[in-house]
Formats: sequence, C-alpha cells, structure tokens
Amino acid sequence: MKIFNITKPDDAIRERIIHKIDNLTKPKGALGRLEEIALQIAMIQQTTSPALRNPHAIIFAADHGIADEGVSLSPKEVTWQQTLHFPKGGGGVNFFCKQHGFTLKVVDAGVDHDFPAGSGVIDRKVRRGTANFCYGPAMTKAEMKQCIEHGAAAVRESFNEGCNVIGFGEMGIGNTSPSSVWMSYFTGIPLEKCVGAGSGLDSEGVRRKYSVLKRAMENYSGDRSPLDLMSYFGGLEMVMAIGGMLEAAERRMIILVDGFIMTNCILVASILYPQVTDYAIFAHQGDETGHKRLLEHMNVKPLLDLGLRLGEGTGAICAYPIVDSAVRMMNEMDSFQETNVTKYF
Amino acid sequence: MKIFNITKPDDAIRERIIHKIDNLTKPKGALGRLEEIALQIAMIQQTTSPALRNPHAIIFAADHGIADEGVSLSPKEVTWQQTLHFPKGGGGVNFFCKQHGFTLKVVDAGVDHDFPAGSGVIDRKVRRGTANFCYGPAMTKAEMKQCIEHGAAAVRESFNEGCNVIGFGEMGIGNTSPSSVWMSYFTGIPLEKCVGAGSGLDSEGVRRKYSVLKRAMENYSGDRSPLDLMSYFGGLEMVMAIGGMLEAAERRMIILVDGFIMTNCILVASILYPQVTDYAIFAHQGDETGHKRLLEHMNVKPLLDLGLRLGEGTGAICAYPIVDSAVRMMNEMDSFQETNVTKYF
Repeated sequence: MKIFNITKPDDAIRERIIHKIDNLTKPKGALGRLEEIALQIAMIQQTTSPALRNPHAIIFAADHGIADEGVSLSPKEVTWQQTLHFPKGGGGVNFFCKQHGFTLKVVDAGVDHDFPAGSGVIDRKVRRGTANFCYGPAMTKAEMKQCIEHGAAAVRESFNEGCNVIGFGEMGIGNTSPSSVWMSYFTGIPLEKCVGAGSGLDSEGVRRKYSVLKRAMENYSGDRSPLDLMSYFGGLEMVMAIGGMLEAAERRMIILVDGFIMTNCILVASILYPQVTDYAIFAHQGDETGHKRLLEHMNVKPLLDLGLRLGEGTGAICAYPIVDSAVRMMNEMDSFQETNVTKYF
Repeated sequence: MKIFNITKPDDAIRERIIHKIDNLTKPKGALGRLEEIALQIAMIQQTTSPALRNPHAIIFAADHGIADEGVSLSPKEVTWQQTLHFPKGGGGVNFFCKQHGFTLKVVDAGVDHDFPAGSGVIDRKVRRGTANFCYGPAMTKAEMKQCIEHGAAAVRESFNEGCNVIGFGEMGIGNTSPSSVWMSYFTGIPLEKCVGAGSGLDSEGVRRKYSVLKRAMENYSGDRSPLDLMSYFGGLEMVMAIGGMLEAAERRMIILVDGFIMTNCILVASILYPQVTDYAIFAHQGDETGHKRLLEHMNVKPLLDLGLRLGEGTGAICAYPIVDSAVRMMNEMDSFQETNVTKYF
C-alpha cells in the first residue's frame, strides 16, 4: 500500500505566529476559536500570512452490503440517485459550494449502479458496493489498497489544480453502520455507545441495527490489525476518503472534516499516521449518537454544532467561512503598532 | 417616547413554508438549525422564497461613568480610539464586514471625545459618557428617549438604503457592568451570576466589580419600572441599540444579535415589546459569565459558540453565512418533485 510521508509542521515558527496574533487590535484571545484556527493554518503553511486557495469539496460515494440487513431507513437506490444528482446542482451540498466558492468533485468509489457517460461523476469504482460484513469481509485487501490509492489520486489532482483546502464528504446509504463498528474497535468504546439513528431510525430500529452489528463483530475472526479492520468492516467511500486525507496531509493541505462518518475516517487515518490530525479542522458536530463521544475521545471540538445530519460534506463546507475569517484576521487586521489604539485587555 | 408598531409575523403562511422545507432533497430535518432559521426568515418576510439584501452592521459607541470605579481592565481611552479606528478599516469588525459584504456604520452614541470632521463616525452623541450610576442615574429620561430615537433613526436610514438584515454591535469600555445589572433586574437572576470577567479581569477583579455593582443596586431607590432601570443603569450605546432593534422589528428586518451586551439589549427591548424576538437571530454565545445563563433564560440557542469576546458586533457578522445558507437552501435546493431522487429519511 502507498506509504505516505506526513510530517509534523515545524515548531520553529510558532512563537512568531502567536506574537502576531497577540498584537492585533483586540484583547488577547478575544477572537477565541478563530485564533486557534489561525495558528493551526499558519503552522501548516509555515507562514504568518496564510492563504486559502481554490477550496475543493470531494464526495466519495459507495454502496454497502450491510444495507441488506435493514440497518437504514433509506432505500439503497438513494445512493446512486443522489450521486447522479449532485453534479447537476440542486442538492444540499451544491448551494454550500456555490456560496463559498468550492469546486465540487463527486467520486464513484463503489456505487452499485452504472452512471451514464457525461454524468459528471468521476469513475473510481472499485466494486459495485461492499459485501455484507455479517458474512465475511466487506472488501478484499487488494480492493482496500485500490481505494487508498484512488483517494490519494483524487486529492493529488485537486492539489495540482491549485487547491490547498479540501472538504471531505460521503454519500452511501448504510454507512453509519461500518462507521459505528470502526469507532468501537478503534476507540475501545462499547458498540452500543457507537450506534445511532443514522438518517432517522426509531429506537426499535436502532436496537435492530445494534444487534446486527454486534453479531457481525462476534463473527469476525481476523487479527484486529488496523488494515484488517479497515477492509473487513469498511466502506469503499470511507477507505477512499482515508487515502484522500493522508494524501492531503502529505501535501500540507487543510483537511475539513465533516460529520460522524468522516470523523471515523480521520480517526482511522490517524491510527495509521498520527500526524494527519495536525492538518485537520473538525467542522461540525452532528446529531448522530456517538459523534460527540468520538470527538471527545479524539480530544477535539468542532467549529459548528448546528444539528446537521445530511452528510455530503455539508458540515465541512458550512464551517468554511469561519476558517476563512481566521485567515483574514491574520492578513487584514491592524496590529497595535500600526494604529493609535492603546494595547488593552 | 416613540411608540413602535411591532406585530407578530402572520401564521397563515407557516404550513406552506414547512411543506417546502420538508420536500427538499434531504431527509426531513437533516439540515438542523438551518431549517429553523429558514422558517423564521420566511415567516418574517411572509414568503417561501426569502432574500437577504444589503446587510448592514451598526456599532453604537459610548463611554461609561461606572468605568471610574475600576470595573474594567481596559483603559477608557480605548473607546474613542477604537471608535475612530473602525471607519478606517483594520479592526476586528472590518475583516468580517469585508468578507460577508456588510456596510459598516459606526455611531457615536456618547463617547467622551470629540471626533474630527471626516472621521467617518456618525454623530449621534447624546452626552459625553454616562454618569457613574454608583451615585445617581447614568442618564436622564430625556437622554434615554433621545437615545431610543437616534437608534431608530439610524436603522431607518439603513432600511431606506435597502437593507433588510442588520447586525448590532457596541464599543464601550465598561459596558459589561451595566449589562450585568440589567440582566439581574430584568431576569431576577442574582447579580453574582450575572457578573463576569469582561475583557479579562482576574477573579479578584471580578469580585471587586461585583461589590461595586451590588452597592450601586443597593443605593438605587427608583420605581424599578423598565424605563427607570434602563435610564438609571443603562449605557447610551445600549439604549440606542434598543431603539435600533425596535425600529428594525417594526420594519420587519432581521436582527442579528451579537454577544452579552447586545443580548441584554434585546432582552430589555423584548420587555417593552415582546414580539421583537420574532425578528431576532441569536448569533453567538460569548465567553462572558452570565451570557449562557441569560440565553437559557430567554430560551434561545445561538448559532455559534466560538469563544469570541471582542464585541463590535463581530459574533453577529461571523454567523451571517449560516443565515445566508438557510436562505440559499430555500431558493437553490431541488425538491423531490423536481428530481428523480426517491424521498428518503
């Protein structure tokens, strides 16, 4: 599998960045989280005058064998229908992209459907949906590697197009199920605290989903290595997102992390390469049970908490103007030295 | 004093708005708070296709006699220095305005300083700072009425310039003190739970501030009517903001409420005219002790919680893109009827 070269941002510049932030015409710390984000981005870019260029949003789409177990309220066909819908505009993700100047890329990682030529969907199909992990691995190791490489290639393309900040999203009916299983294995949190309503299950539905996933975990007899868990329980779009995130970090791009599913992807990415989180901005805390707990486990606090649970990367893009504000603060705000304002608290 | 004619948005259109929101290509409710904001704005504008036009930000600035008691860490001169600084650009509020297309108006409600001609500061000075309310009323009833009328006039001007969404902010060293006193009187919450660090007091400073304010409240022998409390303990910029908010509601404009001080202003405005809150979007929960409690008392949840404590209306403007997203959702997203996507959950 591709080896990624992800390094921690060099600490030498940190004091200069903090000095600049503390000398802007405001009480120290008065712009709160914006100051933290500004520091993080300035560190990533190794400059006191960071810049955001050509923001891209990538949606990886795929189907899930586990959906056959009735773990989702939404019919499976919605995956291909929405995947086809996004490039036409008019979806939830589209108005966010238009508003904030994002280029949207919709990548077929493994949708169980043939998209017509000219649909605008980028073909990286590894297989037509995963196998049902109740009865065996969702994908082979070879397919997992292909996903990682395709994800990396998609992000490399964005990088080559001048993009330095990228939002990751997904479309895949059933994908809170693999996410909950990953979360439980990779954090050690019991499964029942990782399973939620997805796009709208009632409590009976959640119980049923839990028992399906619990049985799948009991049937699993692999070696519990990260790569085995990734391929056995993963989604094709999820593994592809991991490949994309790792490539983005290698290229020192800013990673905007969407909701529950993408948070699980960056969790797994960080188990393979811990430095990846230095490049990640957690955008949104979704409504899905387990997301708040997962974020606490990772010791991060997302920028937004607006009850979004649409996926598609919408939370990531919705938070972008705050990231942009942080960068503008660094470049557009006067220092006390430049004005006649007394330094105050 | 000016009588405002503030009416509740007509409920007749509510079902049509909700029907439209529920038929957009997303699981019902999946855009969370955006759907609530969309409903509120559509109700205010009485249309299923709302629009935001010419956003304005108004900063009311004034000095406070209570600052003589050492209740703030920041020197009083910062009020006039920052008031003069904002129209030049380069302040915290300026990059937010530039980013989100806001026209900024800086209004001198009662700064203890003479601004030079051509400074860009709008002269609505009622007096040079309030009196110290430890020893008597901060302003006379006549001055209070003047503030209300000047605030209303400023917003009327924005309305006449085609603005239908307006962020309210303030600049006034010492103004968390009158805010805490108002909060305690108007909510019944004990003063000690309303007093915080302002722009950076330590715990000894907060204790001192509390004892100053407690003494002022003990010395007060007025009739405790809203108008008496407003004038006795108020800030000139705060009363002017109340006048502005009431005018904005009368004209069915959207009011963006910033942090602790502006939340106290809308609280007092809502005691005079309860319908004003139908027009208010609470933008940001600040760090100031008491703000969270005040918002809970008012039963509202702001859009953002980013640890901002700068004032200047920055929290209100920072939240604007989310409000804009809600409006775009209504206008740019397809309904299930317009697409081939199966209605899903």
